[in-house]
Parts: sequence; C-alpha cells; structure tokens
Amino acid sequence: MSAREDVAALALRSRTAAMVLAGLTRTDKDAALNAMADALLRNSAAIVAANQLDVDAARATGAIDQYLDRLTLTAERVKGIAEGLRQLVDLADPIGEVVRGSTLANGLELRQIRVPFGVVGMVYEARPNVTVDAAGICLKSGNAVLLRGSSSAAKSNAMLVETMRSALRDTKVPQDAIQLVPSEDRESVTALLTARGLVDLVIPRGGSGLIRMVVEEATVPVIETGVGNCHVYVDADADLDKALAIVVNSKIQRPSVCNAAETLLVHKAVAAEFLPKVLAAFKSENVLVHGDEDFIAASSEVRPATDDDWAREYESLEIAAKVVSSLDEAVAHIRRWGSGHTEAIVTDSISAAHKFVISCDSATVMVNASTRFTDGEQFGFGAEIGISTQKLHARGPMGLPEMTSTTWVVTGDGQIRG
Amino acid sequence: MSAREDVAALALRSRTAAMVLAGLTRTDKDAALNAMADALLRNSAAIVAANQLDVDAARATGAIDQYLDRLTLTAERVKGIAEGLRQLVDLADPIGEVVRGSTLANGLELRQIRVPFGVVGMVYEARPNVTVDAAGICLKSGNAVLLRGSSSAAKSNAMLVETMRSALRDTKVPQDAIQLVPSEDRESVTALLTARGLVDLVIPRGGSGLIRMVVEEATVPVIETGVGNCHVYVDADADLDKALAIVVNSKIQRPSVCNAAETLLVHKAVAAEFLPKVLAAFKSENVLVHGDEDFIAASSEVRPATDDDWAREYESLEIAAKVVSSLDEAVAHIRRWGSGHTEAIVTDSISAAHKFVISCDSATVMVNASTRFTDGEQFGFGAEIGISTQKLHARGPMGLPEMTSTTWVVTGDGQIRG
Repeated sequence: MSAREDVAALALRSRTAAMVLAGLTRTDKDAALNAMADALLRNSAAIVAANQLDVDAARATGAIDQYLDRLTLTAERVKGIAEGLRQLVDLADPIGEVVRGSTLANGLELRQIRVPFGVVGMVYEARPNVTVDAAGICLKSGNAVLLRGSSSAAKSNAMLVETMRSALRDTKVPQDAIQLVPSEDRESVTALLTARGLVDLVIPRGGSGLIRMVVEEATVPVIETGVGNCHVYVDADADLDKALAIVVNSKIQRPSVCNAAETLLVHKAVAAEFLPKVLAAFKSENVLVHGDEDFIAASSEVRPATDDDWAREYESLEIAAKVVSSLDEAVAHIRRWGSGHTEAIVTDSISAAHKFVISCDSATVMVNASTRFTDGEQFGFGAEIGISTQKLHARGPMGLPEMTSTTWVVTGDGQIRG
Repeated sequence: MSAREDVAALALRSRTAAMVLAGLTRTDKDAALNAMADALLRNSAAIVAANQLDVDAARATGAIDQYLDRLTLTAERVKGIAEGLRQLVDLADPIGEVVRGSTLANGLELRQIRVPFGVVGMVYEARPNVTVDAAGICLKSGNAVLLRGSSSAAKSNAMLVETMRSALRDTKVPQDAIQLVPSEDRESVTALLTARGLVDLVIPRGGSGLIRMVVEEATVPVIETGVGNCHVYVDADADLDKALAIVVNSKIQRPSVCNAAETLLVHKAVAAEFLPKVLAAFKSENVLVHGDEDFIAASSEVRPATDDDWAREYESLEIAAKVVSSLDEAVAHIRRWGSGHTEAIVTDSISAAHKFVISCDSATVMVNASTRFTDGEQFGFGAEIGISTQKLHARGPMGLPEMTSTTWVVTGDGQIRG
C-alpha cells in the first residue's frame, strides 16, 4: 500500500472514532484519561526500555546532548506525563459550551456551541512526551488524533500509543481515537498534510524548518505554532531596575524555549545609563551579545550584529542588541524581524505602552513583564497544545477551547422565510 | 513588472495602510464609510456607465441572463450598495473588544483583545457589489483590503474603487486601505494566494470551482465560503404540515443561493403519507425531482437520481430526494455527500433532534426551520462577508467579529518568572 492509501485508511478509522467521541460526555472522556494514566504507570518499565532503544540509536548517530535529553524518557518522566493526563481530567469540557446565543424576532432560538474539529493530525519532532500530551488534549476536546512523530522516537511512540490504546479497551472511547502514523518514510507526512476531507486540522510542533515545511505542503488547515523571535524594548520612560530584571529573566530563565527573548532594543535616552548595567548582568550570566555600534562602543566583548542576528531564534545564551532612537523605530524593527510570538515593553508611559500594544502585531504583548509568561500554564489554561503565531482561529497559547470548532444550532417551530 | 512583483508592491502599500488603520477609532472609520457612501451616490451615473461597458462585453460573449443580472449595476442598485455602507456605520466596532480577561495570582493582568488581521485579500467573481461590501466590512473591522474581482467586471470595479479611494482623501483612513488587484491575467490571483507575510488572509467568494482553486493554490490562510449542498431531513416524528412548508421554502424561496436545499431525505415511516404531498407541491412550483426508487414509484415525473445528484448544488428548481430507513442513514448520507453548510431536521422528538445536531458536522443545523435562515442578516449580524464552511476560525455566517484576530495584552509591574 502507498503511504497515501495507508494514511487515508487510518484517517477513515479516525473519522469513525471521531463520530462516537463527539457524542460522549465529560464523564466518559475523563474515565478514559484516567485509564490511560493508570496504564502508562503500569507499563512504565516497558516504555522506558523501548525509549532506551531509540536513545541508543540516536546517540550512535552522534545526536547532541540537548536532542538526547528531549528524547529520553525515565520512570520519573513517565510519571510526569501520566500526571499531565490527570490534570486534563480536572479541566472543564469545552464541548457543548454555548459561545453565543439569542432569540430572533421570529422566535428562532440561535445557539453557537463548541463542537470537536473531528480528526486532528499532529506532526512533531523527537519528543515522545508530545505523543501523550497531544493524545490527551485531543481526547478531552473530543477529537480523534493521528500522531506523526519523528522516526527517531518510533519505538517510544509505538509503546506509548499501544499502552494508551489498550487502556481505552474498557472505556467508551473507541481505540481508534488515538492512532500512530508510520514514521519510516517522509511520504506519510505529505499524505497527512494533503488528506483534505479526511483530516480537519494539522498542528505542527517543532523548529522553524518543520513548521515551514508543513505550511508549504499542507492543503489541510494548519495552525502554526511556536517560532519565537521575541523582543524586549526598554523605553525612554522605563524603570531601569525593572527593565534589567525583565531583560535578564526573559533571556536566561530558560533560554531553549520559544518565549525566551532573542533581541534587546534600548531607547537612546536611557542607553548611557542602561547599557553598562545590562552588559554587566549578561557577562555575569555568560550571555554572548551581538550588538549594534552603540553596544560595541559600550563593551569590547560585544560582537557585531548582522541581519542574521536580528532574524535568529538563538534558543541559547546569546542575544542581539540595538539602541533605537524612538518607539517607532523599535516597532519597525520588531515588525521587520519578529516572528509575531511575544514582545515586551518596559515603560511607565501609558501612551507608549498603548502605541506599542497596537503596533507590534504579535500574539502576545507584555507591558512591564517577562516574555517568559507567554505560556498556557502561566495563563491559567491548565493545558497547552502549543503557542499559535498565526492570526486565524487561535493566537498565543492554545488551551482546550482552541481545540474546538463551533456549530450554529437554530431551533424553531416551523419557521420559513417570507 | 511580473504579476508577483506587482501584487507584492500593492500588498506592501496595504500593510502600511493597515498599520494606520489599526490605530483609528470607530469615529474615524465611520466617517470614512459615510464619505464612501456619499461619493458612490454622487458618482452613480459614471459607475452605471462603466458597468454598462462590462455588461455589453459580457453579453457579446454570450453570457447567460443569470450571469448578466449579477453583473449589472443600476442607479437603484448603486443606492442599495451605498446604503449597505451606512448600515456598517450603525454596527459596533469589533476592534478593541475584550474577549476574555483575568488577573493572575502574581498580579499580571491578562486581556485578550480583538485586533484587525491586517491585510485581507478578496477573490471573487463578476459581482461588482462585492467590491463595495467587502471594502466596507474590511474597513470597519480595521483591515486593509486587496480586491481581486473578475476581469468581466474590471471597468465596474475600477470605477467603484476609484470612487471609494477618492472619498477617503479627506478622512483619516489611508487611501491604500482599499486597493484593486489587476484582473487582466490569472497570475495575479496566484500571486495574491501565495503572498505569505504580506497578506494575512484570503477569502474566496463564488462557485465551488473558484473556492477549490483558491484552497489548493493558497499558502496564505484561507476561509472557505459558500458551497452549500444543504439537506432537509423529514423525521419519523415530524409534523408533516410543518415539514411540507419547510421543504418547499428551503427549495424555492430563492433557489440560486447557497442556503437553498438541494436534497430531501424522508424517513420511511412517513414516506407513504408525505411523498404524495411533497411531490404535488414540487409539481405546482415546477421543481424537478431526481429521486430514489421510492420517489420514482410515487410519481412518473421523478427522474432517477445518480451519485452526481447527491453531490450537486443545483442552485435552481431541481432537488434530489431519497427515502431513508433511519435517522442514522440520513446522517450517513449527509456526511457522505454534504458540504457542511446547513442541514435541517423536521421532528418533534428531542432525542432525534439532539442526535442530528451532534452528528451532522455542519456549520448550521436547523431544527424545524427553513435552511434559508443561514444568513448573517437573518442571524442579526447586520453585515456578512460570507458563510464559512470550514471549521477553523469561523463557521457559518461571518460578521464583523469574524473579520478580526486577537492579541493577548499582559500588563505587569515588573513581574519575572521564578
């Protein structure tokens, strides 16, 4: 069978499961999530053993430590992943929520209610925790999921999915609500991305290369997630102590994630006072600075920034830095080079904050707070499937309501149009 | 210049205009809408004259009456179009609306606010009224618009756009908020559909061929609109008088539009009583029926239905018709052949209505009401840019709020993550 026929056959089974899933109650779905969590804990040793084979194979091909760390499952990590499923049990069911409603003059009763998408495809890299997280979030939001992980995590993913599907056997959720798409060849990704009419939505999770590939190939609707070239702008009216704390926290608190700051912009009015302070702080935290000429003039350790630096998502202890002559210049820089994820302004000026908020064109704008707060858990969503950087459907951290569509239900008593 | 460079140059001007537009108040935008309406009325004779050239050219190529009717502008129609802009003035500004908000434990204030998309591309057929409707809706929702109409309406569209742009000269809305994309060649459509990073959203309006082409070619996000293969299902527990009125109204009240019914499904328990009634009504209204064997047995004038009939959007006085043995069979037929636009059930059974609603997977489900009510004006939206048949972002009639994205604004006092 070709990859296309293979994926189509899987997707048809997903659709059948999705129809059943759409009609289940929260109680039914929560029972399935608890059963999945129990099964993961019970099967933890086998999961860790399967994962070890993936990790050994990756190490043999010379994968770097950061990659291996993301790939690795331990008993402790499996416990954390199972715990994530139990947290979903505590969250409200988004399905059936009445988003809007009214009664028309002719007596028709309108209700816009949340319904599942149907079948969601996940395309992601070598992070086996995503296999369970995504399956849980899709299940709770009433969606069947097709999981297409990395071939480097194939054995881990197979064991995780087998464990979850077995757990569904004694629940009302059909086993086909969770299915793994074969990862041996690249064609299965293309087949998933072009399965219009069979797959309702694809969400890519991973680096910018993966996300670009998905967007370019897909004819199925896509939600882009995660690429974060985030900026912190220190305004002329900033409290410089707060600014220093926010800049440092945004950069170093967890440099490898998408909401870490990658570029610092400083208004020239405060540059003379702020640059020595922030450069000293960066030095003590081992942050390498790629700066413009003002930053270079302030420290011999600053390297000259190129366009490549303004565009880059370092995801490490490096930062690009520039002095700007106005808020407008800061905004223009952000619009030119940013990825629309998160920008922060440090200022005590209401008008500056307002202008920054309406001009940045980003999913999240922080006023006097660290960029690191752009996060579903921090926002109080309880679960997050990713951070959308597109403008359609969902923007910013995506929780359970973002994993739904809506239907208009119009109830009458024989009304016709005159 | 190539079509791609041409469209990119236009889109860059749109982006600049969109930044200004995003910062304007409702008062500013309403003043512009009123100025545009005034100018259309003042310039009505020139608009009708330009349109006459398009109509003459179309007639010379042998266009059918229905096509010519859609293309034609009269002084009365121009007045109606201008009136549509004034109706937008009366509607609330969606921009700045706080969709959700909360204060986190650490004191951070979260607000999710409505913001414009930025630049919206419209791709549509030979209906010059769409040129003004779309420009008005985009303007009110803070979006710059790139209008790509049909070459058959090129002279009409050029005059309409020139009139509207002139009217903007003395307002705060930049003229480039409304721009026409050249329609001489097909390449400009492709350029618009693939202008990622320059165009935020494309909305096609037209027949199923146009919409399929847009979805397949676009790399820019798209909202699919309008293809309506709508079903009416007469349940075993239907009030047959109401059923007859709803079926006839859904089919004949305006057969050419997307929310008209195209297929009738009748439960076998009521077929013996209902078929003669509905066939007599169809006969007196000159509706041609393509039926299954039960319908053929009931009348010699019924033609045999093929798979093509189940799939077709007739948009005329024809209907496909079938007797089903259960609600499940009706739902399966709808899911197999429908376009996800609108389905109606006629029943007095709460459980049948509930099952139909959660199983149909359509943008709108009517319970005991005509399919013809799926309409932004009927729903009380005041304006409608189209009816979305996709599940992402907007589903069903799209009003002003559907023409917006959102941004999270997070306001703090120096908060950092620990």
